[in-house]
This record gives sequence, structure tokens and C-alpha cells, in this order.
Amino acid sequence: MKTQRIGLIRVLTTEDKDLLELHGKKVMSWFPELEVVSRCIPDQPEGIHDDATEQMAVPKVVNLAKEFESEGFDGILISCAGDPAVNELKDVLSIPVVGAGRTTACIALSFDLPIGVLGITDEVPVGMKAVLRDRMIAWTKPSGVTSTLDLMTPTGRSNTLNAAEELKQKGVKVIALACTGMATIGVAPLIAKETGLIVVDPLKAAAAALWTVLKEGGN
Amino acid sequence: MKTQRIGLIRVLTTEDKDLLELHGKKVMSWFPELEVVSRCIPDQPEGIHDDATEQMAVPKVVNLAKEFESEGFDGILISCAGDPAVNELKDVLSIPVVGAGRTTACIALSFDLPIGVLGITDEVPVGMKAVLRDRMIAWTKPSGVTSTLDLMTPTGRSNTLNAAEELKQKGVKVIALACTGMATIGVAPLIAKETGLIVVDPLKAAAAALWTVLKEGGN
Repeated sequence: MKTQRIGLIRVLTTEDKDLLELHGKKVMSWFPELEVVSRCIPDQPEGIHDDATEQMAVPKVVNLAKEFESEGFDGILISCAGDPAVNELKDVLSIPVVGAGRTTACIALSFDLPIGVLGITDEVPVGMKAVLRDRMIAWTKPSGVTSTLDLMTPTGRSNTLNAAEELKQKGVKVIALACTGMATIGVAPLIAKETGLIVVDPLKAAAAALWTVLKEGGN
Repeated sequence: MKTQRIGLIRVLTTEDKDLLELHGKKVMSWFPELEVVSRCIPDQPEGIHDDATEQMAVPKVVNLAKEFESEGFDGILISCAGDPAVNELKDVLSIPVVGAGRTTACIALSFDLPIGVLGITDEVPVGMKAVLRDRMIAWTKPSGVTSTLDLMTPTGRSNTLNAAEELKQKGVKVIALACTGMATIGVAPLIAKETGLIVVDPLKAAAAALWTVLKEGGN
């Protein structure tokens, strides 16, 4: 029985139902008792890729989240490691809101070991940085990868593994993945197997954190 | 199909199989794909209740964890908010180790809101304090409650709710429960319902954090 309803927000505009629901379906496969409804922000087919597009997205995410709350949803998952609008929403909604970046950082912190961040942008997402502080000893991005699409090629995948190996050489024991596109391609278990390190998948982290605080179900 | 095996360590000695397996069975009800095997430390029927009993327990927890690892288990959950032996184990084992205190603090941190700790001891557990730093704005314990058993009485339960209300008055938005005995009695959803706050159950938090980084299953 589905006891709780989660609103999942994708920060890129798509009419491809499979793509739209990809993350939500993964969450439901992990937590079958949850019903996850996915919605995306309007008019940003290229998603968020710099400060300007993030600023543009924030009010749209806020609107979608408020809409979910008004429809009686029990929690909001913003499926982006940049945590867009998480700050704006946390004091406004009466239901829990998680972003994939901050929750990934928090789960990584659980193990009290040196953390490395592996993303696809030039900077570590602000929310992750704020959580990790001095526990982040290194970060990197795979060479030649600038978008989620690049991750899906054989070269992108192999460069991602090389980047993880590089973090390991620097003494990293826990890798925090800083892009939900890495959840899409399911690269976390691959990196864990290759490096032997603990790897935190951002979609799993966000789903797990939100699941933990849902008011009913599973008790 | 059970794909992953978790070793769960109880830090009190018991021959009561139901009590021993209570936490493990909860974890399996939440994550049916996990097999959880529970073991308890020897010769401490009263568990951990001060520094001396904690020091006594640490090497016993280390032994149990090493035993689980040598038997091929995939992760270790130390079911105590005091995180006994988590520090000692984190650099020693090649499988992930979580303690209920630190993971509860980390999940609480996910929401980026003012946190209050509700426990049954006079001090906030060290591991939780280290994670929460200045995000913990208040902490308290229910009056008249000094052990898990006290929590189970009607008075204990009602005093726990009063303590949560007190935290709310101080501006707390997220309550981190600092005793796995509170998971035993399932008080988190009760507090959440009464106060409207986000409440982090320590057993759920530890299970969720460990599940997030398991190498296979659910991907």
C-alpha cells in the first residue's frame, strides 16, 4: 500500500515521460511504499548549467514545491546536486524538503572519513561545500565531461572511473557524487567495486534522508 | 531475494532473542532486500550507561564487527546513539560502519534548519555533537527518564512529548533523537504528529545511511 506521496522536482524541461519519471521510478523501486510524482520546471530544456540558469530556475522550483504541498504531498525531493531553491523553501513549507547535493554531503559525513567530491561542474555545489567544510579533502571532475549526456558514453564512464581513482590516490575514503546524472547512469556501484571506496549516490541519499523523516509508514 | 548482509550490534547483553533481534527486524521490514543478523556484546546486561561501561564495551564491539567482516558481511550497524567503537572501526574495516548517533545527526543536518537533540542522558553524545556543531540550538531529556525502560511507561512517553514541545518553543525545527530506545518504542512519528516538526529516528537514520552506500542491490 502506498502510504506517502513524494513530489520529485526535475530541474530541466522535458516532454519525454520516461526521462521525466526516471528518478521517481528509481525511488519507488527502492521504497515501494512511496508514491513519487515527478514534475519539471518550465522553459528550461537545458536545465541548470550556470548561475544565470540557476537563478532563473529557483522561483520555478519554489512554485512546483508549493503546488505539491497544496495538493497534500508529504515531502519534496529536488533532484539536483545544486540544491536549487532548497534554501528558499526550507522555512516556507510545512513538509520536509531535501536537495540531492546537501543530503549526499550529509550521508558522506556519516562515516567520519576523508571525503572527495566527484562532479561535472567546475565548482563544488555550494550546499555540499557548506556541509562538508574541512572533511572534503579533494574534488575533481572527469575529463571531457561537462554534461550528463557525456557521462553516458563509454569514454565518459571510463573517465569517471579514472577521476574516482585519482581521488583515492589523494587519500579519499568516501566519494560524494555531485550530479544526479550519475544516479541516472548508476555509476556509484561501479566506482565502489573498482576502487573499494564508499560511494554516495545523490538520488539514493536524497531518497534515504527524506524516507527517514516521513511521518507514517514503516514504523 | 536478500542480496546484502548487515551485521547489527546491540550494546547490551541479552539472551532474549526477541529483544536481541528487535532492531534488526525493524531494519528488515524497512529494507526487505537486506538480511540483518543481530549480535550483542558479552557480560554487559545493563548495557552502556556511563564512561566506564562505554570503555568496557568498545573492544567487545570491535571484536563483533571484525567477526562480521570475516564472515563476509557487507556492512555494520552499531545500534547505539553513543556510537561506541565507531571511531576505532572506521579505519580498520573494509566494509562501511555506521553508528546510530552520528548518522542521526547527519540526517538531521540535511534539512539545514535549527536542530534540537532529545536524549535520555545528561550529555549530548560526542559523535552527534561533533557533527551538529552550531546547528544544535537546544537539547533536553524527558524528566524522570534515565533508561530505555522508563520511556516505555505512559508517564515516560508523555514526558518525552513534553520535552519535544519544549524544544519547539526554543525554535527547534528538527529533532534528532539521541537514543535507539526511542526507536524501539516508535516515538518519532508520535512526536512528529504532535509538534509538526521533522523528527529523526536513530535506527531509521543508521539503516538509511548504510543502505545508501551498499554496493549492490537496488540499482
